[in-house]
Amino acid sequence: INPLRIAVIGGDGTGPEVVAEAVKVLKAVAQLEGIQLELREFDLGGERYLRTGEVLPEDVFQELKTFPAILLGAIGHPQVPPGILERGLLLELRFRFDQYINLRPVKLYPGVETPLAGKGPDDIDFVVVRENTEDLYAGIGGFLKKGTPDEVAIQTAIYTRKGCERCIRWAFEYTRKRNKKKRLTLVAKTNVLTYGHDLWWRTFQEVAREYPDIETDYNHVDACCMWMVKNPEHYDVIVTTNMFGDIITDLAAIIQGGMGVAAGANINPEPGGTSMFEPMGGSAPKYTGKGMINPIAAIAAAGMLLEHTGHERAAERVNKAIQIVTGTKMKSQAAGKMGYTTSQVGDLVVEALHQV
Amino acid sequence: INPLRIAVIGGDGTGPEVVAEAVKVLKAVAQLEGIQLELREFDLGGERYLRTGEVLPEDVFQELKTFPAILLGAIGHPQVPPGILERGLLLELRFRFDQYINLRPVKLYPGVETPLAGKGPDDIDFVVVRENTEDLYAGIGGFLKKGTPDEVAIQTAIYTRKGCERCIRWAFEYTRKRNKKKRLTLVAKTNVLTYGHDLWWRTFQEVAREYPDIETDYNHVDACCMWMVKNPEHYDVIVTTNMFGDIITDLAAIIQGGMGVAAGANINPEPGGTSMFEPMGGSAPKYTGKGMINPIAAIAAAGMLLEHTGHERAAERVNKAIQIVTGTKMKSQAAGKMGYTTSQVGDLVVEALHQV
Ligand SMILES: CC(C)[C@H](C(=O)O)[C@@H](O)C(=O)O
Ligand SMILES: CC(C)[C@H](C(=O)O)[C@@H](O)C(=O)O
Repeated sequence: INPLRIAVIGGDGTGPEVVAEAVKVLKAVAQLEGIQLELREFDLGGERYLRTGEVLPEDVFQELKTFPAILLGAIGHPQVPPGILERGLLLELRFRFDQYINLRPVKLYPGVETPLAGKGPDDIDFVVVRENTEDLYAGIGGFLKKGTPDEVAIQTAIYTRKGCERCIRWAFEYTRKRNKKKRLTLVAKTNVLTYGHDLWWRTFQEVAREYPDIETDYNHVDACCMWMVKNPEHYDVIVTTNMFGDIITDLAAIIQGGMGVAAGANINPEPGGTSMFEPMGGSAPKYTGKGMINPIAAIAAAGMLLEHTGHERAAERVNKAIQIVTGTKMKSQAAGKMGYTTSQVGDLVVEALHQV
Repeated sequence: INPLRIAVIGGDGTGPEVVAEAVKVLKAVAQLEGIQLELREFDLGGERYLRTGEVLPEDVFQELKTFPAILLGAIGHPQVPPGILERGLLLELRFRFDQYINLRPVKLYPGVETPLAGKGPDDIDFVVVRENTEDLYAGIGGFLKKGTPDEVAIQTAIYTRKGCERCIRWAFEYTRKRNKKKRLTLVAKTNVLTYGHDLWWRTFQEVAREYPDIETDYNHVDACCMWMVKNPEHYDVIVTTNMFGDIITDLAAIIQGGMGVAAGANINPEPGGTSMFEPMGGSAPKYTGKGMINPIAAIAAAGMLLEHTGHERAAERVNKAIQIVTGTKMKSQAAGKMGYTTSQVGDLVVEALHQV
C-alpha cells in the first residue's frame, strides 16, 4: 500500500505551533488505523522571505506538486508588507494548484461557546463552499496618476463560466451527499454586480435543473450576514464567490466558536490534484511561541485532510476525539483561556483517540 | 423663516407604510418645535416602472434636486428583475446627488433585543461611515462570449483619491465631534485588493496625520465581521468602502436589533446638496399592506433628517420618543411581533414626543 504523503508548511507566527499538534494527532491516528504516513516539512513564509527574498521558489512548488495534500499553519508576518505573502504564497498555492473549492464546515461542537444568544449545536450546522480561484482575488488592477490628487485605482473582479460552474456543480453534489436539509443557498449581490453575479445567477439556475432533489435558495450577501446571526439554522450548504466567501466564512467561524476551532480545505477535486488544509486563524503574532494558541482548528484541518484522502474512518476518529476534548476538557476555545497549553491540548486529543 | 422642505418617496412594498408613520412623527414634532414643514410626495418605484417603464424621469430628478432632504421608504419589487430599480433609482439618486457619505449609526436601544449573548446597550454603540459613490457600485463591467461555456464576466471596482479622501476626512471629523472613544477603524482588504485598497490605506494614513487626537485602527473586512459579533464594544467609528460597507452595515443592523430599527443617511455634505434618509430594511413584499412592519427604522431615519437639516432639538426629541416606545411599549422589533400595528407604533411615538 502507498503511504499518505503530506507536505507540512508551518508558516508564520503560531502556524508552526498548531501544525505541530496536528502532526502529533496525525501520527497517532495513523498508528491506530494502520495508515502509513510520509511527512515532509517545507520552510516557507515571512521568515524565509525576510532572510532570502524568496516567497515560493519554483523548485519548491514543483516538489509540493508531488503531494496530494498540504497541511498549512498560517501565513502573514508583521514585518512583511500586506499582500506579499498572502498573494505570493497562500493565494499562489490556491491558484496554481487550481484548488477551486474552499470548503468550510461550520459546526458548533458540544461544549463550545457561541456568541449567539440561544443557539446551540443543532442550530449551527452548515457548510460554506467558496469559489477559490477567481473574483477580486485575481489580483488584476492598477493605478492612474498614483500619488496625485487625481489618482484612480482599479481592482477588477473576473468570473468565468467554467470557474463558477465547476464550483456550483460541486456544491450541488456535496449538498446531495451531505443529505441533510438538501438546501443549497447561493450568496451573491445580483442587484448591484449586474455583470459578474449575473453569470453566477444564470449558472446556478441552469445547474440546478440537474438537481431537482435539491432545494435552491438565494440571499444577497448583506442579508446572508444577518440571517447567519439571526437564523443560522436556515442554512444547509451555501455556495458563494471568492470575496464574499472570505467574509461570510469568518463570520461563520466566529459563530461556531472562533478561530480556535474553525478549519478549511482548499480542494482540487481532480485526480492527481494537490489540496491544502488549514486552520482559519491567522498567524497571531502576539501569541507566538507562548503555548497559548488553540490547536483544535489545525487538528480539525488534519481531519479534513484524512477525509479528503480517503481515510474516512481515521477522519471520523479525529473528529470524535476533538469533540471529547472540547466538550469535556477545555475551559474555552480562546487563546490563553483553554485551561491547557497548546501542546497539552494536542496530547488530550491523542489520548481521546484511544477512547473512540 | 424658511420651511423645511422634504421630498417623500414611499417606494415599494412596505415602504409607503413605514414612511407614512415617519411623516406622522415629523408633523407632530414640527408642530411641537415650531418647525414649518413642506412635504411633497413622489411616485417612484416598481409600480411606476411596471406601469410606465420609467424609473427616474429627468424632470422628477430635477424637481428632487430642489429639496435638501429626501425621505425614502424602500426600493425593490418582486416583479422587476434585480438591478433595474436598485441601479436605476436608489443608486442613481445616491450617485447623481453625490451623496458620498452613507452614515449608519449602530446603537442598541434599551428594551431592544440583540442576537448577541451577554451584550447590552453599552456594548453596541458605534457608527459606520460607508463611502457611497464608488467601488464595485460603479456598475462597470461586461461579458465576453455571453451564454457560452467560455463566458467571462467582469465587474470592476473603481476608487479615486478624491472619493476616498473626502469620505475618510469626513469620518475623522465625525469621530472628533462624536467625542466618545475617538477611535477610527478603517475596514478594507489591503492584503488582497492590493490596488484599490492600497489607495484607501495610503489616504487613510495621510489624512490621519491631521488628526493626532484620533486613534487609528485597521481591520480586514473578514476580521471585522468577527469582532463585530464578538467584541462590538471595540468600535467607535468605522470607515469603509461601498461594497464592504453594504455588508458590514447589515451585520451591524442585526446586532442592533434588526431591520425594524436600523436607519441610514445618504449625505451630500456640501452646501445646497440633497441628502436622503432611509430605513435599512427592504421592501418586504410578504408583509406589504398588513400593518405588521416595524416603522421605527423609518422614524429614526426622519430623526436623522432633522439632525442633518439643523433641527437638532427636534431630532433629539424623536430619538427619545423612540426609546420610550421601544423600551417600555413594544414587545419585539420583529415584523408582526411588535404587540401593535405599524400605525399604532407611529401613534405611540407621537404620544411619547409629548412626554420628552
Ligand atoms: C489571508 C487571506 C489572503 C485569506 C483570504 O482572504 O482568502 C484569508 O482571509 C482566508 O480566508 O483564508
Ligand atoms: C438595495 C441595495 C442596492 C442597497 C445597497 O447595496 O447599497 C442596500 O443593500 C443598502 O445597503 O442600502
